[in-house]
Amino acid sequence: MTRICFLNPFGTDDYDGLIAETLTPSLRPGTELEIRHLTNCPRNIDYYVPKHLVEVEILKAVVDAEREGFDAFVIGCCYDPALTQARELTDMPVVGPLEAGVLLSRLFGHRFSVVTDHRKAVPEIEDRVRVYGAEANCRSVSAIDWYVDDMIGDPPRVAREAHARCREVLERDGAECIVLGCTIIAACYEQAVLRGARELTDITIVNPNLMAVKTAELFADLRAVGQYRISRRGYYQQHAQHDAAEAASILELLIPPAPAGSGALR
Amino acid sequence: MTRICFLNPFGTDDYDGLIAETLTPSLRPGTELEIRHLTNCPRNIDYYVPKHLVEVEILKAVVDAEREGFDAFVIGCCYDPALTQARELTDMPVVGPLEAGVLLSRLFGHRFSVVTDHRKAVPEIEDRVRVYGAEANCRSVSAIDWYVDDMIGDPPRVAREAHARCREVLERDGAECIVLGCTIIAACYEQAVLRGARELTDITIVNPNLMAVKTAELFADLRAVGQYRISRRGYYQQHAQHDAAEAASILELLIPPAPAGSGALR
Amino acid sequence: MTRICFLNPFGTDDYDGLIAETLTPSLRPGTELEIRHLTNCPRNIDYYVPKHLVEVEILKAVVDAEREGFDAFVIGCCYDPALTQARELTDMPVVGPLEAGVLLSRLFGHRFSVVTDHRKAVPEIEDRVRVYGAEANCRSVSAIDWYVDDMIGDPPRVAREAHARCREVLERDGAECIVLGCTIIAACYEQAVLRGARELTDITIVNPNLMAVKTAELFADLRAVGQYRISRRGYYQQHAQHDAAEAASILELLIPPAPAGSGALR
Amino acid sequence: MTRICFLNPFGTDDYDGLIAETLTPSLRPGTELEIRHLTNCPRNIDYYVPKHLVEVEILKAVVDAEREGFDAFVIGCCYDPALTQARELTDMPVVGPLEAGVLLSRLFGHRFSVVTDHRKAVPEIEDRVRVYGAEANCRSVSAIDWYVDDMIGDPPRVAREAHARCREVLERDGAECIVLGCTIIAACYEQAVLRGARELTDITIVNPNLMAVKTAELFADLRAVGQYRISRRGYYQQHAQHDAAEAASILELLIPPAPAGSGALR
Amino acid sequence: MTRICFLNPFGTDDYDGLIAETLTPSLRPGTELEIRHLTNCPRNIDYYVPKHLVEVEILKAVVDAEREGFDAFVIGCCYDPALTQARELTDMPVVGPLEAGVLLSRLFGHRFSVVTDHRKAVPEIEDRVRVYGAEANCRSVSAIDWYVDDMIGDPPRVAREAHARCREVLERDGAECIVLGCTIIAACYEQAVLRGARELTDITIVNPNLMAVKTAELFADLRAVGQYRISRRGYYQQHAQHDAAEAASILELLIPPAPAGSGALR
Amino acid sequence: MTRICFLNPFGTDDYDGLIAETLTPSLRPGTELEIRHLTNCPRNIDYYVPKHLVEVEILKAVVDAEREGFDAFVIGCCYDPALTQARELTDMPVVGPLEAGVLLSRLFGHRFSVVTDHRKAVPEIEDRVRVYGAEANCRSVSAIDWYVDDMIGDPPRVAREAHARCREVLERDGAECIVLGCTIIAACYEQAVLRGARELTDITIVNPNLMAVKTAELFADLRAVGQYRISRRGYYQQHAQHDAAEAASILELLIPPAPAGSGALR
Repeated sequence: MTRICFLNPFGTDDYDGLIAETLTPSLRPGTELEIRHLTNCPRNIDYYVPKHLVEVEILKAVVDAEREGFDAFVIGCCYDPALTQARELTDMPVVGPLEAGVLLSRLFGHRFSVVTDHRKAVPEIEDRVRVYGAEANCRSVSAIDWYVDDMIGDPPRVAREAHARCREVLERDGAECIVLGCTIIAACYEQAVLRGARELTDITIVNPNLMAVKTAELFADLRAVGQYRISRRGYYQQHAQHDAAEAASILELLIPPAPAGSGALR
Repeated sequence: MTRICFLNPFGTDDYDGLIAETLTPSLRPGTELEIRHLTNCPRNIDYYVPKHLVEVEILKAVVDAEREGFDAFVIGCCYDPALTQARELTDMPVVGPLEAGVLLSRLFGHRFSVVTDHRKAVPEIEDRVRVYGAEANCRSVSAIDWYVDDMIGDPPRVAREAHARCREVLERDGAECIVLGCTIIAACYEQAVLRGARELTDITIVNPNLMAVKTAELFADLRAVGQYRISRRGYYQQHAQHDAAEAASILELLIPPAPAGSGALR
Repeated sequence: MTRICFLNPFGTDDYDGLIAETLTPSLRPGTELEIRHLTNCPRNIDYYVPKHLVEVEILKAVVDAEREGFDAFVIGCCYDPALTQARELTDMPVVGPLEAGVLLSRLFGHRFSVVTDHRKAVPEIEDRVRVYGAEANCRSVSAIDWYVDDMIGDPPRVAREAHARCREVLERDGAECIVLGCTIIAACYEQAVLRGARELTDITIVNPNLMAVKTAELFADLRAVGQYRISRRGYYQQHAQHDAAEAASILELLIPPAPAGSGALR
Repeated sequence: MTRICFLNPFGTDDYDGLIAETLTPSLRPGTELEIRHLTNCPRNIDYYVPKHLVEVEILKAVVDAEREGFDAFVIGCCYDPALTQARELTDMPVVGPLEAGVLLSRLFGHRFSVVTDHRKAVPEIEDRVRVYGAEANCRSVSAIDWYVDDMIGDPPRVAREAHARCREVLERDGAECIVLGCTIIAACYEQAVLRGARELTDITIVNPNLMAVKTAELFADLRAVGQYRISRRGYYQQHAQHDAAEAASILELLIPPAPAGSGALR
Repeated sequence: MTRICFLNPFGTDDYDGLIAETLTPSLRPGTELEIRHLTNCPRNIDYYVPKHLVEVEILKAVVDAEREGFDAFVIGCCYDPALTQARELTDMPVVGPLEAGVLLSRLFGHRFSVVTDHRKAVPEIEDRVRVYGAEANCRSVSAIDWYVDDMIGDPPRVAREAHARCREVLERDGAECIVLGCTIIAACYEQAVLRGARELTDITIVNPNLMAVKTAELFADLRAVGQYRISRRGYYQQHAQHDAAEAASILELLIPPAPAGSGALR
Repeated sequence: MTRICFLNPFGTDDYDGLIAETLTPSLRPGTELEIRHLTNCPRNIDYYVPKHLVEVEILKAVVDAEREGFDAFVIGCCYDPALTQARELTDMPVVGPLEAGVLLSRLFGHRFSVVTDHRKAVPEIEDRVRVYGAEANCRSVSAIDWYVDDMIGDPPRVAREAHARCREVLERDGAECIVLGCTIIAACYEQAVLRGARELTDITIVNPNLMAVKTAELFADLRAVGQYRISRRGYYQQHAQHDAAEAASILELLIPPAPAGSGALR
């Protein structure tokens, strides 16, 4: 049994059902997927300041999941928020959907473009693609001008509009596949397809949620047989390699120990 | 049950055991791996001319595997020979170890270098990394100056020398992980580790064979649920989309129909 | 009078004197520089998790400084922590020393290399240089293997060792100037020079603290005459442009309003 | 006398006259140009699988030409098929029209774009331009949506449509010259110009066939005076440098010795 | 007092008033700006040949300004003509508006585009941006198809047309700010804004003249406290470092000594 | 008969014999090569200021050569001084040795490095390679620390030292060929080889003088048959396209008309 935690890094449970519905059909036998969301934090992650605060909560959720024995963790937002921080913090494989979607895109087509939600997300995604070293095959990053808050009210329309935009971008850019750059757009699109909208599959649209979950399965396997030997030389070097006491104090600052008798999970 | 064909694209069975031994422990339950090799073709692929002839045989092997119902196919050489041609030819997912190793390397470390067998291989691998759009995160491609023919005589020594070279390259380049750029080096290294040489795991060395087989599992899954929607717009456009009769005649040229009563598989 | 706040984003006042001593001589008449540090947060920022927590405090300090009427703000660490978040949050110019040092380096020499403190910092600085679009002229990022905690105990030695390393890097890389990639190394170096170590000025070493403060003066001037028309189209788009109520609630989450009668500054 | 072999790598003689007509006027005195085509192989090279099979025949043609004493060889297709393999195989200079056209384009204008035949060719040409290290000055690769099979039926129309498309691309891209990315388009265009269509010369269109033949003359000259000292360190390293017997057996596999008394050329 | 010389490198005084009017409001207290122009040389610099001749005169003007004790020098044209030569020649800081505008653009927005005067200027500016190492964040360079000679007749119209073009380019490119690539366009635009055309400030347009003058102030400050330690290792290495006599003779060739009793400044 | 002018852009005839000796053996029948040098200008071009003054004289020499009916012109210095200006000025093909050597290098090996004379030349050559769009295949630019003035005293030693340095650079860089980045080094090396030093030909060293002259032959051919249709859209746009009177006055400024009766060539 492989246990994967997929975190919707939003302070609301609004998207949990949509994600569960659209990922479950693609799990392999033996994978158990648990969808979680955050509490006590902003419901949206669109701007840098709320995103930063949300990332603090993501790190807590990662530690929780590791303590609960999950085999891999997906951060369910295409900003890949707190991805590097999380990899520093844990030996449990942590996957970001943008990174997974972008890296695997070449098996779907020669060049990719990204289509995301709104204009604010574009520069951040461009920067992440650049940091991932994948800019050379990326034609562009564009937006459909929707916010996730609004999407949840009409997923079929989001699916249609995203598909139409993807078509335009493919033609304009001479790209061959689109990596959706927003997990909620991707889920709306996938839901429509799974519910029968075959006309939306005439072009190649890569669902980053799916790429992330399948990559999580892959890395959970690697870890199980001792093959996830992540480098701890620099980027993913852990604080305790330099100063274990300091590292412990930071962890305590992040997740204060529960008072005696509180019965809390942590 | 997921059936994966791993082809050693060499005109010899010398490497089959080594590959089987080093991949089997990392398969997930439900994967059946078949190791194949070529016949009637050069035993080595190091130079461009023999490589070109070997690629003709690889394409035949891909068609055979598809006809036999394999779920995915791995071309077991880090030149990723005939990879694009094969993807044009079949809807069965085809995976190259260099491509898989390079694309997934970022989950192992910030920057990678490639260590391959001999000097002849270096420019070809540099070009492939560039074509894959992954040059930005690649520090260098280096060689250990061994030919695969010689490796099979002393795998433990190959493992030690490769490890030593990888160490040097990491230090020199400021890379964080090494993607081995030769499937036989990778198998020698993995064998040594699996047989107990833990001292070789102090640095992060990515085994491209393993990345390829796990990626093959992943894409076999995607295909099984209708999620391997490869783009046929250009790079992977199929001949029959333009001219079905011509495509059929090419296939016949590649694999002449067996004479009546021959009992051949094809 | 131009009032600039230079924040040492460390939970300690250990470095305040050093920074004050080394920047004061380069201020123009009419600039008032206030050096601040953080409290109630990690004293070190070297790893991604403590850095993330420190960045929350930086954002609070930025808001405080804006409310107190500062004309510009420098985040005194070469990770340029929270730089983008801060620019989203305020119309007061915010400057990062790495960004300032790197962008201005071309006026000092044809190609630059960065020398920072320890190995953990190297990939982060490489990524920032890449995001800043300045990779093309950057030869390398290297470290001297010191932690800031230790530097404060022996600044002259840090100055000498940094200088020696810079020399080596210049020769090895064929670079023409070094941008120091750590504000404390830079301050140690500058202190030594200001106290008479002229032998350390035989090569071109760019002090990012100085570049940051002078850039802060420049942008404070621009703002004063209405010339700091930062684009709010995407990267620096403000939350309130999309949803003013939500933005206000985020700000409240970041900086809870003081209870009545508390007399707090905020 | 300089003898150059220009091979139309198609299994048909349909294009030989067109190529001869359009190149002959630009030969220098003393150059003898022989146009050849392939037999017993696909007449089209548009898709990767037939292209691969055609490349086997190209290699045979290269060996033949060398044995017959040609001074240089042009592979007459803008995929530059089998170019690297051929250079490995022979010391006779071998030229590809895309490579020649792209490398010399800077003498015609600041930035170039490529216009090729159909969508399938675009990604391959993009990859070749990238491998040639010439991507930085290339604005785009576009197609006119013609197949060579159809072009031969109406060369003047191909010339007009190609010219119109080149105009559009120049304006859209801000390029200054177009390298045609298909030898047959180029020949149709050149034929029209040579037959008097001066209105097609208002923009700068580089004929890769012409660049290839002139480059072949240049390298034939170099070779004649011992100045074609191609590096055999890696990319063009020859099989016999590593293993002469194996190299001989590969050559025999490529070109089986003629049976005694067969009277064949080889 | 900081004395800055801003040279209009045109053989006419037509633009001096416009430049003075548009820069004066942004000077800090204590800066004295002197606007100069050239005499006895072409009035336009648009083409490479006149530009080359103008650059000879610029070098003379730089030497003059240094001898007169200016603290910094701005070459007022976005070709940044003679910039490298001037930095070789003098220790007085010399600033080019394109370089200054481009390097500082990131503080105004995520990606920039350049809008310049006419088509001839586009490739030169593209090359300069590339040489500055800033191409990665530059979306495009475009022109408005005006020559400076004509601009001076109708600055308000230039301002409006430039603004309209900048709008279009921002939308088309997904850029966030425009660096104007012509000092006269920039001055026309700034004049309109200063005279009340607030509607032109709805997008972020960076005035390179202003960036240059403020950067000149900054570097004059650095120099005054001994902090302008430009590297003399290569790019800015001075002739006298190699051969002082030869350097002196070159300077004499550039600026022949005044005959005795001539009373000339030099 | 093809008449090519090779200009040594130095104010001395010291190098003319060396250049003639080393190029003559590689000319094709029918090429007449005339070696010229400059007068009344600096004998050296190493620094930016003298180089700028030399370029004025180069432009005059280009105009002279065109008026005398030369078919092509080579500017014999690897700074490619005044190359773009010259192409703007004339329809006679003008070739720079660095450009020619770099562009053709791929036919000699997979990656190239440049070896030039002294440290001052390195950044300029790096910038030119970048502007030529050829940086992707260039490993490095290095110097041997000689000035041309000294070379002429001992060409055999220059040849040996350059060869030794090229060997080192090839090994260090993993390059496959060296483009010499100084015409005088190249001539010294070629002279040694032509006089019998076969031991210097064990590695691939590209002589840019030779590449330039052969490219000049090629473009002279193109021009003779109306095939040198250089783009005049922007980079090479001519002044007279915008303003013929102004262009004429500039030409007169560059080359003042001879006074009546002076008998001068111009």
